[in-house]
Amino acid sequence: MVATTAYDDHFHDECGVFGVFGHSDAAALTALGLHALQHRGQEAAGIVSFDGLQFFSERHIGLVGDRFSKPDVLGRLKGDRTIGHVRYSTAGGAGLRNVQPLFAEFAGGGFAVAHNGNLTNAHKLQIKLRQGGSIFQSTSDTEPIIHLIATSQEKKIVARLTDALSQVEGAYSLIALTEKKLIGVRDPLGVRPLVLGMIDGAPVLTSETCALDIIGADFVRDIEPGEMVVITEDGVESYRPFDPKPSRFCVFEYVYFARPDSMVEGRNVYAVRKQIGAELSREAPADVDLVIPVPDSGTPAAIGFAEASGIPFDLGIVRNHYVGRTFIEPTDAIRHMGVKLKLNPNRLLLEGKRVVLVDDSIVRGTTSKKIVQMVREAGAREVHMRVASPPTRDACYYGVDTPERDQLIASSQTIEEIGSAIGVDSLGFLTIDGLYRALGEAGRNRDVPQFCDACFTGDYPTPLTDRTEKTDNRLRLVEAD
Amino acid sequence: MVATTAYDDHFHDECGVFGVFGHSDAAALTALGLHALQHRGQEAAGIVSFDGLQFFSERHIGLVGDRFSKPDVLGRLKGDRTIGHVRYSTAGGAGLRNVQPLFAEFAGGGFAVAHNGNLTNAHKLQIKLRQGGSIFQSTSDTEPIIHLIATSQEKKIVARLTDALSQVEGAYSLIALTEKKLIGVRDPLGVRPLVLGMIDGAPVLTSETCALDIIGADFVRDIEPGEMVVITEDGVESYRPFDPKPSRFCVFEYVYFARPDSMVEGRNVYAVRKQIGAELSREAPADVDLVIPVPDSGTPAAIGFAEASGIPFDLGIVRNHYVGRTFIEPTDAIRHMGVKLKLNPNRLLLEGKRVVLVDDSIVRGTTSKKIVQMVREAGAREVHMRVASPPTRDACYYGVDTPERDQLIASSQTIEEIGSAIGVDSLGFLTIDGLYRALGEAGRNRDVPQFCDACFTGDYPTPLTDRTEKTDNRLRLVEAD
Amino acid sequence: MVATTAYDDHFHDECGVFGVFGHSDAAALTALGLHALQHRGQEAAGIVSFDGLQFFSERHIGLVGDRFSKPDVLGRLKGDRTIGHVRYSTAGGAGLRNVQPLFAEFAGGGFAVAHNGNLTNAHKLQIKLRQGGSIFQSTSDTEPIIHLIATSQEKKIVARLTDALSQVEGAYSLIALTEKKLIGVRDPLGVRPLVLGMIDGAPVLTSETCALDIIGADFVRDIEPGEMVVITEDGVESYRPFDPKPSRFCVFEYVYFARPDSMVEGRNVYAVRKQIGAELSREAPADVDLVIPVPDSGTPAAIGFAEASGIPFDLGIVRNHYVGRTFIEPTDAIRHMGVKLKLNPNRLLLEGKRVVLVDDSIVRGTTSKKIVQMVREAGAREVHMRVASPPTRDACYYGVDTPERDQLIASSQTIEEIGSAIGVDSLGFLTIDGLYRALGEAGRNRDVPQFCDACFTGDYPTPLTDRTEKTDNRLRLVEAD
Amino acid sequence: MVATTAYDDHFHDECGVFGVFGHSDAAALTALGLHALQHRGQEAAGIVSFDGLQFFSERHIGLVGDRFSKPDVLGRLKGDRTIGHVRYSTAGGAGLRNVQPLFAEFAGGGFAVAHNGNLTNAHKLQIKLRQGGSIFQSTSDTEPIIHLIATSQEKKIVARLTDALSQVEGAYSLIALTEKKLIGVRDPLGVRPLVLGMIDGAPVLTSETCALDIIGADFVRDIEPGEMVVITEDGVESYRPFDPKPSRFCVFEYVYFARPDSMVEGRNVYAVRKQIGAELSREAPADVDLVIPVPDSGTPAAIGFAEASGIPFDLGIVRNHYVGRTFIEPTDAIRHMGVKLKLNPNRLLLEGKRVVLVDDSIVRGTTSKKIVQMVREAGAREVHMRVASPPTRDACYYGVDTPERDQLIASSQTIEEIGSAIGVDSLGFLTIDGLYRALGEAGRNRDVPQFCDACFTGDYPTPLTDRTEKTDNRLRLVEAD
Repeated sequence: MVATTAYDDHFHDECGVFGVFGHSDAAALTALGLHALQHRGQEAAGIVSFDGLQFFSERHIGLVGDRFSKPDVLGRLKGDRTIGHVRYSTAGGAGLRNVQPLFAEFAGGGFAVAHNGNLTNAHKLQIKLRQGGSIFQSTSDTEPIIHLIATSQEKKIVARLTDALSQVEGAYSLIALTEKKLIGVRDPLGVRPLVLGMIDGAPVLTSETCALDIIGADFVRDIEPGEMVVITEDGVESYRPFDPKPSRFCVFEYVYFARPDSMVEGRNVYAVRKQIGAELSREAPADVDLVIPVPDSGTPAAIGFAEASGIPFDLGIVRNHYVGRTFIEPTDAIRHMGVKLKLNPNRLLLEGKRVVLVDDSIVRGTTSKKIVQMVREAGAREVHMRVASPPTRDACYYGVDTPERDQLIASSQTIEEIGSAIGVDSLGFLTIDGLYRALGEAGRNRDVPQFCDACFTGDYPTPLTDRTEKTDNRLRLVEAD
Repeated sequence: MVATTAYDDHFHDECGVFGVFGHSDAAALTALGLHALQHRGQEAAGIVSFDGLQFFSERHIGLVGDRFSKPDVLGRLKGDRTIGHVRYSTAGGAGLRNVQPLFAEFAGGGFAVAHNGNLTNAHKLQIKLRQGGSIFQSTSDTEPIIHLIATSQEKKIVARLTDALSQVEGAYSLIALTEKKLIGVRDPLGVRPLVLGMIDGAPVLTSETCALDIIGADFVRDIEPGEMVVITEDGVESYRPFDPKPSRFCVFEYVYFARPDSMVEGRNVYAVRKQIGAELSREAPADVDLVIPVPDSGTPAAIGFAEASGIPFDLGIVRNHYVGRTFIEPTDAIRHMGVKLKLNPNRLLLEGKRVVLVDDSIVRGTTSKKIVQMVREAGAREVHMRVASPPTRDACYYGVDTPERDQLIASSQTIEEIGSAIGVDSLGFLTIDGLYRALGEAGRNRDVPQFCDACFTGDYPTPLTDRTEKTDNRLRLVEAD
Repeated sequence: MVATTAYDDHFHDECGVFGVFGHSDAAALTALGLHALQHRGQEAAGIVSFDGLQFFSERHIGLVGDRFSKPDVLGRLKGDRTIGHVRYSTAGGAGLRNVQPLFAEFAGGGFAVAHNGNLTNAHKLQIKLRQGGSIFQSTSDTEPIIHLIATSQEKKIVARLTDALSQVEGAYSLIALTEKKLIGVRDPLGVRPLVLGMIDGAPVLTSETCALDIIGADFVRDIEPGEMVVITEDGVESYRPFDPKPSRFCVFEYVYFARPDSMVEGRNVYAVRKQIGAELSREAPADVDLVIPVPDSGTPAAIGFAEASGIPFDLGIVRNHYVGRTFIEPTDAIRHMGVKLKLNPNRLLLEGKRVVLVDDSIVRGTTSKKIVQMVREAGAREVHMRVASPPTRDACYYGVDTPERDQLIASSQTIEEIGSAIGVDSLGFLTIDGLYRALGEAGRNRDVPQFCDACFTGDYPTPLTDRTEKTDNRLRLVEAD
Repeated sequence: MVATTAYDDHFHDECGVFGVFGHSDAAALTALGLHALQHRGQEAAGIVSFDGLQFFSERHIGLVGDRFSKPDVLGRLKGDRTIGHVRYSTAGGAGLRNVQPLFAEFAGGGFAVAHNGNLTNAHKLQIKLRQGGSIFQSTSDTEPIIHLIATSQEKKIVARLTDALSQVEGAYSLIALTEKKLIGVRDPLGVRPLVLGMIDGAPVLTSETCALDIIGADFVRDIEPGEMVVITEDGVESYRPFDPKPSRFCVFEYVYFARPDSMVEGRNVYAVRKQIGAELSREAPADVDLVIPVPDSGTPAAIGFAEASGIPFDLGIVRNHYVGRTFIEPTDAIRHMGVKLKLNPNRLLLEGKRVVLVDDSIVRGTTSKKIVQMVREAGAREVHMRVASPPTRDACYYGVDTPERDQLIASSQTIEEIGSAIGVDSLGFLTIDGLYRALGEAGRNRDVPQFCDACFTGDYPTPLTDRTEKTDNRLRLVEAD
């Protein structure tokens, strides 16, 4: 029903998480935190709370501000400890069954889990678990984790969770709620973010610092790769259940996913993006009259580009925010109107000008082509494009919604070919080393890269078991919601 | 939201099932069959089909005629084999998760099951299974069966199902759909009904023959107590996986649950009810001017009473069928209007008359009291009541929604006291032997009763493990639908 | 969306009205009264109240018990005076705009009106009013009345209403609410019913006495043909604004429309129907084993037929009440299952028997044919039919939903032809004089008939202006609800 | 249900209109045009079409992109001519009845009208019309226009419309659709915008040029104040039915209402706003490190301010676009989180900096206070504010949703007091002459102002009859939708 509009040609982060332990307004704080994380997932949201006796679950399709802003919904989420989740779409497709947090009742008590990331051996685990008698209720890649915990021979929940996670491959930043504990874990490579905050003495775990800001919580520190924190009434304990590995944080979080006002792994995202723009202006200068951002994601890099180059910055393209990222069943007529549903050039400003458009990335190239054409038709004399990241040549399997490789324009075309395909007078991408420089590194360390940059380099930091073993994970049940 | 009106003082059967194998209109036939079984459950309905490749599931709160009559719903249920279910409310409470058929994917393939009855050791099984790592998604007493199958060491599905059922106690008539088979089983005592029919060469399994009539199917035979029939493309095979026991069919199916036009275990329900009325007129005659049924369930017995006694039969109470069995959140004002929402006396007919009201049973007695009062206020000179069953003194644990024992008026009061409580000039119940006589027996066989009559006698034919062991089956998750 | 099932082959009354003045529970009483009148209209319902300052309106598609039973709905209907309306479908088609009561604000204050009946010069009035500048918002035949009042040159509301009604032709029993008054009027012929009741000192106006019974109100008297009653805080005043004419009450109210427990124009409906059955057994006896009613509308006449003839009465056809009178978008498969959605023969009872089916009327004959066929297939040896009214040969234009004349089987076929068409062994209708006799008359007075019997005789008691002048009343606006 | 969030402290334009005549995709073009005008009204939208035979109307609460993007909705709007409307909220309150276009059937045929503006003598007209027998169905100030047309003594629709409009006071840009004509009119002062465009030979009338851009239509010209254009199959005719007056276009359209990419009365809105920023930097310079826009409406002026002053421009406040302009029933907890639902400061950027915030206007001042406090808490050393318009001291009665005068902070406080109230280190507003200069004028002509600037000056260009005569326009009917 709700389809991604074809005019949002981006990778999409799949999830954001938020949990708080020991606060009388736990559910409302979680709703606010998830609202601040809405850019990490707009399809659905869920919150689970525990009041000392029972768990309460509310999971709904739609925006947090629409579905979790009413007093009755928050009122049903009783208790002082909660975890919540927003999701974009997942491995496993839409449907309320797949909305997180997932909940299970083990012999030892209730257990809720919310997960940002993606397992690369989920299907293999599912097959094995099913042979042992486990029954799956969702196609979520989070459910195997729950069954691994349920069938673990360990006694204590922390040991069971460690046992379970030691069998999974891929990227995850997950938070879990039991009757006594709020637990947060990042995978050993730390691909997805997870931070610890504090509000009124109550610990908070969440994906980005912007979710701390909205509730007025203090930022304490990033959870470290491979770290498990266990929060109880006695405080926050830290464990290191996995062998230490060098960190491989997702570099695309800086390029596009994270909110510009977040601090991510010690860096301010807006500052990084401006720095990327500056780096880009040096690597790929343009002799033009105006720097025009492709709004909104290209704006910080465009400001950096303009500042560094001394070329004036102007809002040459106006964005209609009433569309959002999705559009419901557009008619053919509307579909072909295309990018104009969202963007409109400012004709008078562009007329007769040489302009450089700054965008954050190019995925399929289809939208870029339409924007360039639109800007030309509005009267621009020359249209150049500069892209604030390297060419995206490979799909991501770590919790990001990306097209398959063959739909990525950069996987099969040179920069010149892409420039010709989208119709620009010149095209420039940031280099991979330029990207690392903008992040404060001397350049990419080829032997031990400082980040996960697989979408640019094809260098995947974990095995991709389900892809290589081509397991049958046909869905046998089609269910109306 | 949907509450049983307090003015339907009856036991309620909890479920009806319907399955068909190998018919091009399988889903539509199943919807029709479930519509005919709607009296066995009005809260929700579900159908699962299989099209050779995938299972399709539609489960909805509401009436079959409202939720399964649209072409798009039936169109989504592809394939030539289906099972369906209607339910009243269950062990486990409301909520879409509990609506059947339940579905699971085993290592060996998909499996859907629909169940009429109730297990008396479901909680004990649940605790044991959870300790082994099974994760429960519903509070339905049907789910333990699925986990028992999933964790069975047997290889073939029939053997696994047999293994699973050998561990359960209670009453069940269940039907299951796998990729290759439609399976029907009745518990060894045969407490709940299940019949085999045939339409256009396609076998049908369903609760009552009225569901065969509506689709024009032929009645073949009753499935026997303890029998398992396995229907494949090669035909219908019969198995006897359990030790044979004497049948204990639910006698209340004749009194109230089954539709009057159904043939149940070889007897026509309408004919039995008329015979009950005749028996009642002999055991408890009344010197009155008119025989007035309490509509609609008292009507066949009233006709039998009138015919046998020679007293004229008249519709002295008119039923408003727009209420149905439920009423949504009535206001206090409406609540106190009580029985009048549904029943209205025909003043002119009753004025100055001596009348006998014939009802099928008395549960709490609250409604009877209101009806009697209403009939008196309409002008009747004398109001007598005759009840077409013995006093109901005990709760049912075999798939019937009954109040706890202490709410049953007959559990603590004599017939005289009840008569006084409901305000009649005289009150008569059918005796237990009279009931057996109406069914063609010489009387109740005290040693080996021919039926399950536990609600009248307290003589339960199976252990009631969950009741006696008082297991903790507190629900830990409260979830919004 | 909601379509009449083809298996309810009846004329349908279009409306019921209920109003109360000066009771603290006015809205709840009105909801209850409308619930009791639900048989007069199931499509939609509305209530308007006045609290001394403002009018409040709730109009909803659906059953009263579903849409007006919640506390919030009734809570919004503030004040001690209300009028309400149920409707089946109308002149003007479906849609919330046409749901009554209609409301208008005149220069002199607010005015709400609810109407049972139909104007036969509504289109002609509409054209004339539009030429004067009136703007119509609905296609309801009630709206011209409001505009006639709005544009009347009279000063007082009673005079304005009289002025308006003096220009209309047709049948109406209407109730109106102003800031100070509850007004009830019957047309000069009194075609539709309207009664006055009293509860806790508050006057009630409603269509049938069953709506008084449900709230415990006392029946005071019928409003007389051509009478206008004006209820204020000072009491009930009666006016006679029109020239007196002989009454022509609708005889079909006795045959089918009114509820059997209502008193209508001094007669008990159930008693009349039994008398009709007795008369029918004399006029058209049948040599059979069983009298079988076509449920539920044929049941009282069947009881009367059985009593008078001494032939046993039995429920040979069981009705499934979960269908109601409408079915939502059935699939073709379900459509062809036809009458079985609603009725099922009791096979064992009918096998080998000679039976007479008693129904209240035959309209198109299509359903009768299916019932006869169904009863034969269930094993009946002979199937005779007796109809508790004369052949319906003409359409009704007085507030009844009837097919056009050419779809009425009796308009073009003899009784023998009809019998052959529906496949019975013999067919008998009540004669028109027999019908009058059952009502206590010596027979029909050809010169001045005692009732409106136009559907049987074609003798319309008012001009049919809109039909004869064939005005263009094409709807120019199609609006989504 | 849907309430304006308290954190959007702006005046709001109430409506946008769009009409097209003679295009096969008329309905889809209108939906697109209304989507582009969504900033002029987010509460509801409606479209009426005519297919040569019938009018079709779809009016829905919600966004155009949500309610008018589905094929079935557009498919129901048949025909090649349509008018449409978006609305924010109106004189008359919420409710589907008030959603435009309004439709009426006159003696001469159907007539639909959509209106941007507000009549200042609507209540007086309503009272007069009601005395003549007109019945009002909405509280919209557009309905009196329809009744004036309906009751006009003129024959032709253009003459009737002229007759009607000659009796109204206030501001309007309205478009109307009859069976043969698309008509557009601006009031004699031309307070609200209306432009003529052309697509594939089909004339378009709409509020802003951005609605032409989205469909690829050419801009032809502004409709002139007091002009009526009548579009038929023969082309576009222009009439001047009113006495000529000097134009008084709403200056606030430039400050905030219009989209930055629109051309309005010959000026590009974005360019005007940058010029306003430049003018502001000269009138009220600030010695700071950074220019920070209050997003999104302050951004163009901030860019102009930064460019003119040479101070760096930076996105120091990040806006969460998932809130939109409304929030549904927030909990108290969320309500007090306030402005953070929508805006978050970029801590790292602001820390230790002296910043100037640039906003478009200050209405109540409550939001400004919260933003200033938030920016301070994020670490800014000095916080100055510059406002891109003069102090708003008076309410608007010409189709803008403004608080009453006493809620406007500038109506009772000096600039110093406001600065102190919102907590800034310094505060500067643009002067009224500065605003006129930014628009290319030498300054405000005190005798004959070039614009309507009543909200800044209290100088209303029309009588405010309903305000001065204090007519009773109490709503007598409260109706559930």
